[in-house]
Amino acid sequence: MNGARVFSAEARSAARALRPDVQAVDTVIARAAWSVIAEPGDGTAGALIRDLGPVEALLWALDRRAGAPNSPERENSTDAERVAQARARWLPRADPHAVVHALEGARHVHARLVLPEDPGWPTMLDDLDVHAPTALWVRGHQALLAMGRRVSIVGARASTPYGEHLAAELAGDLAHTGTVIVSGGAYGIDGAAHRAALRVGGPTVALLAGGVDRAYPAGHQRLLAEIAACGAVVSEVPCGVAPTKWRFLARNRLIAALGDATVVVEAGWRSGSLNTAGHAASLGRPLGAVPGPVTSAASAGCHRLLREYDARCVTTAQEVRELWGETPAREPRSASADPERTRLLDALSSRSPLPVHELARRSGLAVERVQALLGMLDLEGAVQRTDDGWRRAAR
Amino acid sequence: MNGARVFSAEARSAARALRPDVQAVDTVIARAAWSVIAEPGDGTAGALIRDLGPVEALLWALDRRAGAPNSPERENSTDAERVAQARARWLPRADPHAVVHALEGARHVHARLVLPEDPGWPTMLDDLDVHAPTALWVRGHQALLAMGRRVSIVGARASTPYGEHLAAELAGDLAHTGTVIVSGGAYGIDGAAHRAALRVGGPTVALLAGGVDRAYPAGHQRLLAEIAACGAVVSEVPCGVAPTKWRFLARNRLIAALGDATVVVEAGWRSGSLNTAGHAASLGRPLGAVPGPVTSAASAGCHRLLREYDARCVTTAQEVRELWGETPAREPRSASADPERTRLLDALSSRSPLPVHELARRSGLAVERVQALLGMLDLEGAVQRTDDGWRRAAR
Repeated sequence: MNGARVFSAEARSAARALRPDVQAVDTVIARAAWSVIAEPGDGTAGALIRDLGPVEALLWALDRRAGAPNSPERENSTDAERVAQARARWLPRADPHAVVHALEGARHVHARLVLPEDPGWPTMLDDLDVHAPTALWVRGHQALLAMGRRVSIVGARASTPYGEHLAAELAGDLAHTGTVIVSGGAYGIDGAAHRAALRVGGPTVALLAGGVDRAYPAGHQRLLAEIAACGAVVSEVPCGVAPTKWRFLARNRLIAALGDATVVVEAGWRSGSLNTAGHAASLGRPLGAVPGPVTSAASAGCHRLLREYDARCVTTAQEVRELWGETPAREPRSASADPERTRLLDALSSRSPLPVHELARRSGLAVERVQALLGMLDLEGAVQRTDDGWRRAAR
Repeated sequence: MNGARVFSAEARSAARALRPDVQAVDTVIARAAWSVIAEPGDGTAGALIRDLGPVEALLWALDRRAGAPNSPERENSTDAERVAQARARWLPRADPHAVVHALEGARHVHARLVLPEDPGWPTMLDDLDVHAPTALWVRGHQALLAMGRRVSIVGARASTPYGEHLAAELAGDLAHTGTVIVSGGAYGIDGAAHRAALRVGGPTVALLAGGVDRAYPAGHQRLLAEIAACGAVVSEVPCGVAPTKWRFLARNRLIAALGDATVVVEAGWRSGSLNTAGHAASLGRPLGAVPGPVTSAASAGCHRLLREYDARCVTTAQEVRELWGETPAREPRSASADPERTRLLDALSSRSPLPVHELARRSGLAVERVQALLGMLDLEGAVQRTDDGWRRAAR
């Protein structure tokens, strides 16, 4: 398969300009094209690319002649039918100009097209199998997607000061120690988490539902520009594509897949964050939820995660770290109190000294036991002996 | 064994006065005596009573001659040693006048001595095995201990308005539907739970660490009197006995054992409520914890229960009922949204009508699929057909 025969000079030139480091320019074009023609998470596209590679899959998909490619994997008639239906979805978008437009649009905003073939591809996304993105459009530091530890901190847009405070506390602490804060760039909890990371000079990644050239929400234009400058702004749809309800839902799977753990800070009963949490759980990623007042509707979704999704209750950054197995610096547990010692201390008075037999009666302990315990307490300076018996020592 | 030979006429008379309905007056005296000489939860006493019955166990225990009783169960030398040590604990308290005093003191405050031999004995306490109470001193309606459903609602003395509000909400709702609210009569959460039950005319039981003749805390004198009048005030120690730290800890096991479930509403990091919760967990009783603001020290213990004790997060009375298996009136889940439908609705505009091929391109769906979905949406009145194409219908 020689791409030179099928991709236009214009496309090849745009692809080379965007990724001069990649030899296989056809792969760049084909993956950009897949991101144009298939909606996020299209499993038929994913399976086709897995089986044929991105270039051949694309050429075959866009060949308007009917029929499945002549590979043994595609002989199954159900597969053939599914692919035929998929083609019918893809063809209305199969416009070569749209691909060139996507490549040029990315270059215009200094975005990069990151490919699964790249060494820096975030392999965590491969857990999504055929629903993994066909490529990622990235503004900023793409290394943040694949290196070190990442935690996805998400939550309600309709957050409360309590939730924003918690999101900032957790994200600030975690980012300060180098954990990448992944979130969705939205108002509310997402914004608080990103901002806290930026404030401590820590790494943060915003995953958008629309193109990385679009600030969505518009009120976060400056925040997203800062994230692009100091962290990374990422999408699987090309520049110019609007965020839609469907794309928000699809985007959530990427947030869940990218994080070593997902933490929901505040969420209403039907919050989109529960969708992200559900993805994290089904990917086997650790899931944490920050509790809040039962009286706050903004915490109802978090409590639901604790009840229905087996989320772990997290209240501190250290508890978030425990989600991926960092062991806590254990607080030394106080040696469990000796019951007999407690009973003897209960029986002692700090004012009136009491004789041993009275202490035995009061504490319900044997005289010998009282004597032995008094000896120990005496050594500790916890009791005083007087002519009339024993009393508690003044502190 | 004929009790007439060993128990004084004074004791027999006091026991008959307190429990005229019980034929076996020796049993009444012996159990009252055990409650005088053994501290709560004394497992050696429990085992001895289990093996020999309360009367014979007492007579043997107080026989100052050394040695274990000649029963095969007691031949084990470790047992013999343990019993010898226990005797040394019990003998300092073995004062016949104290037993008479306990019986008369109970009668004076209209308390009743409830025996494991009584048909109304709360058999839930038998789960405590040899640590079960030897008897219970009860003011009020002892039937509340054994009938129907009971929930233990406990928490911090140093509660917040949030916690008191929640305790009152949960206890009021549960008591209103006949669930007995069990708690410890303390300031804070305990008091809020008892009061809420009384307010709705519902049943409530206070388990005290000291005698039922003593209002502890003193500021709850009136509350405890109301509970005794409308519910029950219960202790395993006789009248006149002071609450001590040890007895509070021991009392907590009774609260845990009596409840079909235990719910902790607010608790500090080292709250005594965690002790009650630990007892509930080790008895296999369902354990619930009410979450609260992470920023509130009064909720730290609840979050600890969620993290470390596998407590279930509860936020409503219905969720408390689910702890003992009452099935919720399931909220009908909305049929999970059809992704293609979502994508088509995303693509539709409510202002400009769009032709089918444009809707196919925008939504990433096949033209045929768009046509089929539009047909359904049209039937639902969700879209309108115009000469120029389709648009979303105004709501």
